[in-house]
Amino acid sequence: MRQAVDILRFQTSGRGLMEITGAVVQWVDEQAMTEGLLTLFCRHTSASLLIQENAAPEVRADLEAFFERIAPEDPALYRHDDEGPDDMPSHIRAALTQVQLSVPLIGGALALGAWQGVYLFEHRTRAHRREIACVLQGG
Amino acid sequence: MRQAVDILRFQTSGRGLMEITGAVVQWVDEQAMTEGLLTLFCRHTSASLLIQENAAPEVRADLEAFFERIAPEDPALYRHDDEGPDDMPSHIRAALTQVQLSVPLIGGALALGAWQGVYLFEHRTRAHRREIACVLQGG
Amino acid sequence: MRQAVDILRFQTSGRGLMEITGAVVQWVDEQAMTEGLLTLFCRHTSASLLIQENAAPEVRADLEAFFERIAPEDPALYRHDDEGPDDMPSHIRAALTQVQLSVPLIGGALALGAWQGVYLFEHRTRAHRREIACVLQGG
Repeated sequence: MRQAVDILRFQTSGRGLMEITGAVVQWVDEQAMTEGLLTLFCRHTSASLLIQENAAPEVRADLEAFFERIAPEDPALYRHDDEGPDDMPSHIRAALTQVQLSVPLIGGALALGAWQGVYLFEHRTRAHRREIACVLQGG
Repeated sequence: MRQAVDILRFQTSGRGLMEITGAVVQWVDEQAMTEGLLTLFCRHTSASLLIQENAAPEVRADLEAFFERIAPEDPALYRHDDEGPDDMPSHIRAALTQVQLSVPLIGGALALGAWQGVYLFEHRTRAHRREIACVLQGG
Repeated sequence: MRQAVDILRFQTSGRGLMEITGAVVQWVDEQAMTEGLLTLFCRHTSASLLIQENAAPEVRADLEAFFERIAPEDPALYRHDDEGPDDMPSHIRAALTQVQLSVPLIGGALALGAWQGVYLFEHRTRAHRREIACVLQGG
């Protein structure tokens, strides 16, 4: 068994789900392994990683609306607002969706299901530059 | 260190938590490793994986009721309904509970706590056939 | 590649987020690896693990208030109360925040972002002794 590590960088365009499956698969392919485990780790507290439906765009809009409902930008609800009204809702969304995910590599391909994509979930209103640490261990 | 990969298949019986600890432990035992890391990955966007209490069945009913409350089958809330009213609530539940989990293998046994079981969480109303990709890396 | 496994023990002081980054980093440093993957696993169903903001203490208070809102200690909502009114809300919080997390090790350091800390999230009202299983695989 051997391993590869790297930092992938992405520019988001503000709040919402941004698919990064292509960039992730390209990096995995470059490591030329057949079986193993890929782990992605988002180095931020106001963005996260999510496996989600990659077909219907309404899913992403509905997910966004869901998180607005349970963690609204309502100043009356939060004490922490150092970076604006989207600051604390962002931390809550990141806590609920996680900043890390691992995907098995089997037969030379990530074991994603037919309808699964890997998404970087930006929780801040404005665009941000985001770093994702990657580890692939296998052979 | 070496590794084993596989796909485990399960038939759910509709919405709810289905314990899969036994099948997972059996597969791990067959790999005959002592220390390592097991990773499970659910290849679907409307089912997920969860570590939960394995003693009181009321916990599973209460969990089910909780998710019905925060992500109800209310057509007024979602645009995405390609596969019926349980479609979008399923994606939300999967986003909140995650499709991947890893468990350390220590001293020849998974390091689950005394009250922890591994559950496949079916979010669709009807029964489905589900695939879980497994990777065990260790020695 | 090689691996190290261990069980770290912590005493919480009741409900809330307790930072454990220091203890985790110390254990990782003792294994003297440069690149790899650290996995932490909380062996309980009423405590969990979370990566969160490590600067503003208001974030932790706001997170606590958020979980009180969506999973309140309201006996009318739950059937399971074997260990008191904080029992079922604890299982829900653990389901939403997960009991496992993995962090890449790159260049001899965990790839945590500048504002990220590792937290043990105690969900029970009273203090508890908690065990976290650790696996570090790398070289």
